[in-house]
Amino acid sequence: MPSKYLNFRNSVPWLIFFLEAVFIIVFYFLSSGDAFQDVSHMVIFGLGFFLAFQKRYGFSSTGFNLLIVVLGVQWSVLLEVHLEIGIIQSCCMTAVVISSAAVLGKANPIQLIVMTIVEIAAFHLSRWTNERYLEVHISMMHVYLFGAYFGLAVSFSFSEPSPNLEKNASTPKSDLLSMLGTLFLWVFWPSFNSVLAVKKDKNTIIYNTYFALAVSAVTAFALSVMTTKDGKLRMTHIHSATLAGGVTIGYAAHSIQHPWIAMILGLLAGVITILGSHCLQRCSNPVLRIHDASGVHFTFGLPGVLGALAHVILFIIRNWTDLPSLGYPIMINVGTFCLTISVALISGFITGLILNFKLLKTTPVSKYCEDQFYWKFPHLAVGF
Amino acid sequence: MPSKYLNFRNSVPWLIFFLEAVFIIVFYFLSSGDAFQDVSHMVIFGLGFFLAFQKRYGFSSTGFNLLIVVLGVQWSVLLEVHLEIGIIQSCCMTAVVISSAAVLGKANPIQLIVMTIVEIAAFHLSRWTNERYLEVHISMMHVYLFGAYFGLAVSFSFSEPSPNLEKNASTPKSDLLSMLGTLFLWVFWPSFNSVLAVKKDKNTIIYNTYFALAVSAVTAFALSVMTTKDGKLRMTHIHSATLAGGVTIGYAAHSIQHPWIAMILGLLAGVITILGSHCLQRCSNPVLRIHDASGVHFTFGLPGVLGALAHVILFIIRNWTDLPSLGYPIMINVGTFCLTISVALISGFITGLILNFKLLKTTPVSKYCEDQFYWKFPHLAVGF
Amino acid sequence: MPSKYLNFRNSVPWLIFFLEAVFIIVFYFLSSGDAFQDVSHMVIFGLGFFLAFQKRYGFSSTGFNLLIVVLGVQWSVLLEVHLEIGIIQSCCMTAVVISSAAVLGKANPIQLIVMTIVEIAAFHLSRWTNERYLEVHISMMHVYLFGAYFGLAVSFSFSEPSPNLEKNASTPKSDLLSMLGTLFLWVFWPSFNSVLAVKKDKNTIIYNTYFALAVSAVTAFALSVMTTKDGKLRMTHIHSATLAGGVTIGYAAHSIQHPWIAMILGLLAGVITILGSHCLQRCSNPVLRIHDASGVHFTFGLPGVLGALAHVILFIIRNWTDLPSLGYPIMINVGTFCLTISVALISGFITGLILNFKLLKTTPVSKYCEDQFYWKFPHLAVGF
Repeated sequence: MPSKYLNFRNSVPWLIFFLEAVFIIVFYFLSSGDAFQDVSHMVIFGLGFFLAFQKRYGFSSTGFNLLIVVLGVQWSVLLEVHLEIGIIQSCCMTAVVISSAAVLGKANPIQLIVMTIVEIAAFHLSRWTNERYLEVHISMMHVYLFGAYFGLAVSFSFSEPSPNLEKNASTPKSDLLSMLGTLFLWVFWPSFNSVLAVKKDKNTIIYNTYFALAVSAVTAFALSVMTTKDGKLRMTHIHSATLAGGVTIGYAAHSIQHPWIAMILGLLAGVITILGSHCLQRCSNPVLRIHDASGVHFTFGLPGVLGALAHVILFIIRNWTDLPSLGYPIMINVGTFCLTISVALISGFITGLILNFKLLKTTPVSKYCEDQFYWKFPHLAVGF
Repeated sequence: MPSKYLNFRNSVPWLIFFLEAVFIIVFYFLSSGDAFQDVSHMVIFGLGFFLAFQKRYGFSSTGFNLLIVVLGVQWSVLLEVHLEIGIIQSCCMTAVVISSAAVLGKANPIQLIVMTIVEIAAFHLSRWTNERYLEVHISMMHVYLFGAYFGLAVSFSFSEPSPNLEKNASTPKSDLLSMLGTLFLWVFWPSFNSVLAVKKDKNTIIYNTYFALAVSAVTAFALSVMTTKDGKLRMTHIHSATLAGGVTIGYAAHSIQHPWIAMILGLLAGVITILGSHCLQRCSNPVLRIHDASGVHFTFGLPGVLGALAHVILFIIRNWTDLPSLGYPIMINVGTFCLTISVALISGFITGLILNFKLLKTTPVSKYCEDQFYWKFPHLAVGF
Repeated sequence: MPSKYLNFRNSVPWLIFFLEAVFIIVFYFLSSGDAFQDVSHMVIFGLGFFLAFQKRYGFSSTGFNLLIVVLGVQWSVLLEVHLEIGIIQSCCMTAVVISSAAVLGKANPIQLIVMTIVEIAAFHLSRWTNERYLEVHISMMHVYLFGAYFGLAVSFSFSEPSPNLEKNASTPKSDLLSMLGTLFLWVFWPSFNSVLAVKKDKNTIIYNTYFALAVSAVTAFALSVMTTKDGKLRMTHIHSATLAGGVTIGYAAHSIQHPWIAMILGLLAGVITILGSHCLQRCSNPVLRIHDASGVHFTFGLPGVLGALAHVILFIIRNWTDLPSLGYPIMINVGTFCLTISVALISGFITGLILNFKLLKTTPVSKYCEDQFYWKFPHLAVGF
């Protein structure tokens, strides 16, 4: 392994410096001066700790999360200035962080950096196509869907860690830290969902998101007790299902006029997440050879699909009296959904293949989920 | 115990789903669309970690805190829409979280849910009576007083854990997590105290709360050194007394015109909390059969009483020249105070009795303060 | 040691009460009513956890941080009311917290309190001199420079802990907690840098600070891999260098018109911090007898000097065409820089001497970095 490892050592800094040089040179020819949305950064900050649940991967979860966010934001600003569109870097970074969660513990920093660069480009392509050909503006739903399915497609190319590997388990301490991140996300999710909205919709979105989050958190507790054998709660259920409501409501939040609709969506989101976590991890994931390290599929993927579906159904119900004219807008909606998912899956699959070229693949399977492969501990024997 | 435990397993989900069904159906006939105050949620988030100090109860402290907040907010919105009053759900939830702290480690989720439902109803009753008959508007002081004394009255009906039980002790790690929650609360307390105030008073309240918090934190350090045998600091003293200043100032903050008055109130709050923590836990609590799990009495109760007293005294001093006409407003103030405390104590005592019906009482005393009774650990042998 | 310890026990409370009495009496004759900046408190809160990386010093890091902040703010308000200037207490407290980081684990509470009192007075003196004689208004740069060099000068008088002492090492858990503080600071740093600025500059400052922070964080990852022997990352590098960009940009942020300049400054800040951490700790610190407990010199000191230098160079480049008239403003800039550093070094050195009078020096070197010397643990045998 030493030869491989030198490879890793020699490549990370140069990759980073090369990218920084490119960024600085390109920025030299560009110029922009807008302020960022603080609230979005809080979400990215929260996601770092949300992912810190693995026993021996806390440093990498929070550290690499910071690395890809700071690299990705610069790259995203460049792309957007070029495409002459407004500010959505933070939303874009959320998609990247969600994707990185799907390969948590398996991708090394080089792979994560390459993935960030490719994913942001693909995300902007998907967004640009949507706006150009379907005249649909990006919403938070695309962010969640794109992030989740890109990540899942990437994880397809990574070999699964050996099943008796205990390293990707959590400890009570790491679960508690992850709970900290979850509660942080929970508090800021309503504001986050409203970031891309026009001003007059913001209040409605915050209100609806809040209700959906509340009901999905409640549902998480109820279903977690029902689905475990001895009637106990599971922390991972609470983590995933608490946020599922906010993901589901992301697409339709501005158009929901009654809180009870938001509440039902939250309830469905909670149900789909908990059941998904049971079925997917037992049945479909082993068949599809997907090893979804942090439950991205049922935390962001399925609730996102549910949200897109709900958006169409709610639209049909609202315009019940004028059925014939519904065809075109529904087609557009379905088209946007299919386009986003397709671009995510295809580009994710290709990215996964690229990431597993010999050149980039330096982490042996036995070193998955292991902080010590990347980080120097001055306190090795202290009782990790 | 297995039979009892099945009881718990079968009841929690159905209770939750029944409540959610009721909420959704009632919301169907209602309609409201206001935004929430983000700052209040930060406080609720902070309280979850403030309570995470027990060695083996971190999951339950943060998890159940989330559960009662999300259920309670929905219930509170319903009640308020019915009573046609403004938004104070978050304040109301703060009272519930304070009460739940008094039975921390002893109440199971079913009991907590029932307590939340009853307490919110009682809180709104107390508020409605105050506004209807005494024409006094709710302030943060009522929130703290109501929450503390309701919780203490409830804890009266719970049997005390065996004295040699070491489980409700804290570890350095859990104390540090609790410090995180405390500092969070400390930072947001000034904004929180000003949530219910009219706009022109907000700045004064923030300023005065800040000074009171600063002085009570300083006092906590001084008195903590003086009251321990070997002159060392105690983390629990710092936790409680740091916040006491913010509680005491809650009632009178808008009417204090000089920072030095706020500072003296903060000083008294620090003193009453540290001395209270010594005297209450040694003398009065064993006599009154109250086992106050997280020091709710001296963190929120006594500073609240001090604040109510200070409010009356400051009012008298301000209107010194016109003594004869003072009788009525003072009577109103004292009446509000007594009414709030009485409703809290009576409804809390009744709630405590209800919670200890056989039907709801499923946690044996030996399982108090034990996360593993409620949560599934995939990492049992990892070294908790 | 018991005799010495009684000394500590008897002195801390009386010192605190004496100060509080003075504050309350002086406030009685004064009157002020402005609101504080919430964002600044977030930074102070974050700094407490940023410093919680020492294995056995978590209680003291967060607790004493709170103590000096709450005492210092009151003292600072007094001084400023006297000097009739606006609100910069929080900035002033940031300088104090940075200084206290330099003697982390070595100074006892009495020393910290005395240091706080003296440093705030010296800081206001430096600020007043700058404004009176050089007509330069205080900026964030002075805060970072003053805090760092005052702290280093103070640490000169403290004896170094024995080199084989393992206590000031970090554990993975404490490093992760420190990462929490770092990310918190990272998120709020852009707003913090803009606190002292006039409104029209705020957006530019936030934008530039953000870019500098992003690039310095990226650089930290690259250089950390390059400078360790086996090509691994070091958490301490990430902690320091992530923030270095925000420190460097603090002085010039309002005058930078292109993001690429901010990015280059961030890059240089990252480089200087990582190289500084290598060279200083190996070569110059042992020679100068400075034991810089938490890397204040290369986290805040050197990036601050770099920022001041950059400010002058950028100023020269901007006014290239009008070279002859540049002399006076450059002289003023250099003068401010030298004045701030000189006052910091001289007053810090004197403070260090005062702090090591027998009367104040109660912590034996063997008890450095030891929570148990100051805090009572009810859980001694639990496995710290």
